[in-house]
Amino acid sequence: MESSLPKGLKSLISFFDRLPGIGPKSAARLALYLFQTPQSFLDEFSTAVNQLKNEVKTCSICFNLDDSDPCRICSSEKRNKNRICVVERVLDVLAIESTGKYTGVYHVLGGVINPLAQVGPEELTVEQLMHKISDNPEIEEIIIATNPTLEGEATAMYLKKKIDEDGKGVLVTRIGHGLPMGADLDYADPGTLVQALEGRRQL
Amino acid sequence: MESSLPKGLKSLISFFDRLPGIGPKSAARLALYLFQTPQSFLDEFSTAVNQLKNEVKTCSICFNLDDSDPCRICSSEKRNKNRICVVERVLDVLAIESTGKYTGVYHVLGGVINPLAQVGPEELTVEQLMHKISDNPEIEEIIIATNPTLEGEATAMYLKKKIDEDGKGVLVTRIGHGLPMGADLDYADPGTLVQALEGRRQL
Repeated sequence: MESSLPKGLKSLISFFDRLPGIGPKSAARLALYLFQTPQSFLDEFSTAVNQLKNEVKTCSICFNLDDSDPCRICSSEKRNKNRICVVERVLDVLAIESTGKYTGVYHVLGGVINPLAQVGPEELTVEQLMHKISDNPEIEEIIIATNPTLEGEATAMYLKKKIDEDGKGVLVTRIGHGLPMGADLDYADPGTLVQALEGRRQL
Repeated sequence: MESSLPKGLKSLISFFDRLPGIGPKSAARLALYLFQTPQSFLDEFSTAVNQLKNEVKTCSICFNLDDSDPCRICSSEKRNKNRICVVERVLDVLAIESTGKYTGVYHVLGGVINPLAQVGPEELTVEQLMHKISDNPEIEEIIIATNPTLEGEATAMYLKKKIDEDGKGVLVTRIGHGLPMGADLDYADPGTLVQALEGRRQL
């Protein structure tokens, strides 16, 4: 549909179109919107894109992203280093941090085990997690917070088995599943309802 | 929620967050996605943003955007210059062009009359449209293709009245309203159903 557009716009549309969750129509809208912003905004935006990777470091302990290595969370004295929350991606760290209720540290797997996409434990930071557990005799709990998807569940089961093999009897927990806050029972899918029933607690 | 993120990521997230239709969560996802692309992609993307306005020209006849002025449509000998389709924005030109069925030319208003947003006819290219009509004795038809919104309808009525005042008796038409192709009568809103009934045609 961009046949009659000038080159500059077409080029930017094609870049937006390649980003996840942005289709050709949204890409065209975004590019047209940017076209109407002042050049100074475009300059700043362009610089932000270009320098995205400058000075961003991957934490060598938990594989989170931050300005420093170790990251703010791993180097904070207030965090309990003996409780590790295992998540798939950096954004999951942000989501849990936004609650302000978690005082342990994290371990970013970098994805989930997915044989169809040829992602095995070797492609993830599983080995580093195992070392972290065996190197720390005071470890209290490993909270597995992978997403409640097929791959997330399989990865959780894999990690549980792997940690148990260590023979140290470390407590491994899984984040709670069930109805999200504000949800409508009526609209919930059967899978979620089964999880909610199985995860019921005494009041 | 970006409290623990490195500066580079935070900065890009804030730019994405300012774009229309992108909320804070999507902004973070996009920035993280870009972080995982090679620097060469970031370089090219950044250049596309920076040079967006280079060599893009606004057509002085129809106010469409193109590499040349007049634009490809206005300078094409195949297009009927006596049939003008009046649209709100450049993207509407693209949408109609994508049908491949329209052989006339366009006139981009640059928006709609919206007193609440302090947009009057002076802020749009209404005067230029009037000149175009009065300067062309062979004009056949003005198709008003503003969106079927409150402001779009009001703008259409305003233009119709204004063109009629010219006294030249130019044919002014409005694009058809009714059920979109593939729609379900059941799910249509009452306004669309009223339009569909009023716009019924004999078979």
